[in-house]
Amino acid sequence: MESFIEKVRLASENVRSFLCVGLDPNPQLMPITDVFEFNRAIIDATIDIVCAYKPNMAFYEALGLQGMNSLVRTVEYIKQKGAHTLIIGDGKRGDIGSSMAAYYTAMYESWGFDAITVAPYMGKDSILPIPGNGKGVFVLCRTSNPGAQDFQDLSVTISGKSLPLYQHVALKCSEWNIDQNIGLVVGATYPDELKQTRMLCPHMPILIPGVGTQGGDLPSAIRWGCDQNGRNIIVNSSRQILYSSTNNDFDISARQEALRINQEIDAILTMENKSW
Amino acid sequence: MESFIEKVRLASENVRSFLCVGLDPNPQLMPITDVFEFNRAIIDATIDIVCAYKPNMAFYEALGLQGMNSLVRTVEYIKQKGAHTLIIGDGKRGDIGSSMAAYYTAMYESWGFDAITVAPYMGKDSILPIPGNGKGVFVLCRTSNPGAQDFQDLSVTISGKSLPLYQHVALKCSEWNIDQNIGLVVGATYPDELKQTRMLCPHMPILIPGVGTQGGDLPSAIRWGCDQNGRNIIVNSSRQILYSSTNNDFDISARQEALRINQEIDAILTMENKSW
Repeated sequence: MESFIEKVRLASENVRSFLCVGLDPNPQLMPITDVFEFNRAIIDATIDIVCAYKPNMAFYEALGLQGMNSLVRTVEYIKQKGAHTLIIGDGKRGDIGSSMAAYYTAMYESWGFDAITVAPYMGKDSILPIPGNGKGVFVLCRTSNPGAQDFQDLSVTISGKSLPLYQHVALKCSEWNIDQNIGLVVGATYPDELKQTRMLCPHMPILIPGVGTQGGDLPSAIRWGCDQNGRNIIVNSSRQILYSSTNNDFDISARQEALRINQEIDAILTMENKSW
Repeated sequence: MESFIEKVRLASENVRSFLCVGLDPNPQLMPITDVFEFNRAIIDATIDIVCAYKPNMAFYEALGLQGMNSLVRTVEYIKQKGAHTLIIGDGKRGDIGSSMAAYYTAMYESWGFDAITVAPYMGKDSILPIPGNGKGVFVLCRTSNPGAQDFQDLSVTISGKSLPLYQHVALKCSEWNIDQNIGLVVGATYPDELKQTRMLCPHMPILIPGVGTQGGDLPSAIRWGCDQNGRNIIVNSSRQILYSSTNNDFDISARQEALRINQEIDAILTMENKSW
């Protein structure tokens, strides 16, 4: 079985894309009503051109048991269609060790994800019981929202040295990453923080949300997010792809939008002499 | 409709108890196999002597769709049995504003909770879209686990003044608590941090986990956690109550354990001249 870092690499290499589609079904924006059918159309239209899908748990839980059922079917469908496609469960979980072990069972076994997002506030024992067998986590480091500044940018002092909290989180995660199964989340909306994080953690995969509706800067995200070989990032776009058309052609439109983002990323990598 | 703070007050006053039972079904520890039947027996045995129940989402999600179904039935059952009983969904959620709104729909509407736990790392816009209508949140401040020290105790510097991160989180939550619908989570395993938090936030409800199996200090938790009137705390115990017996008498045993904790709390309050 591949290691987590190998899985991340293969997912991108297989399709020559760093793009991840955030599968966040919002009934008020969806052109059809059935969540699984909506996801299936998006997946069919993009599976050969994206490296990952990232269902955000909030949108499925908001639809109750039926929503959770749609999530299970969606994950099964992606597994059928894409042998190397990474499926990231975006739940931002974090709890005491014994409860976190239950969350890992939930996210990897009940819902079938390859990787999940995790919140760092509760520290080492809330992150580390990752079960192995190729599974991994992306720890929230510097998030894409305005409130990211409230705590993540605070200057913390450790042994007389000061640095922003998010950088300390990055360094601790790097220290805990003995099994190469930890990545980081850094929003495209904060390119300078992304650059700092990549400098501190040259080899960890970085999941970069915030491109598209949230207004993240794609060229900077690619330039500063990639490792020195132009690899090891996963760039997520949700609403910009899912809801690029509100008509029946939403899947065709989603594919065009995904292709456009792929081309933009390729152009930036070519400029940097880091293309495939 | 009552405000959130009023609901918290009534839940305790109604039964003269600050005790919350953490409904964390663990198939390896449960004396019967059906999760809903297990919860129902625990609820029947304790509904008249506890102020709240706190299902931890991790344990239901770990059991897949069937687990989520047991959760829904459990919450419905508590609502039928206890008009004033507070039901706290322990999910430690936290996301960007638009996703957090979906989590609030999920936790309050799909699953039916009165209050939920929330992680602060993503800041103000990840907490504030609380929908009103008597719902509330408990924000993680100083958690009960060993890893709490990794980030929550870091010294942060704001306008030249230094204080531990968890205290800054407490102060920001107090500032954001305009609608009186925010409480804090502080573990019983760290009495001094609980004392500091209560001094900074004299009027906010504090949810105190970590009593029992985690080794929290109950007398100190009561002494330092209560407000000046000896109120405004919710003391959670999970495993110590649920699994006090592994035989068929587990419900009787759970009731005895809950009564014992209630008596211990009452004795401490009497010593402090703050009894009911």
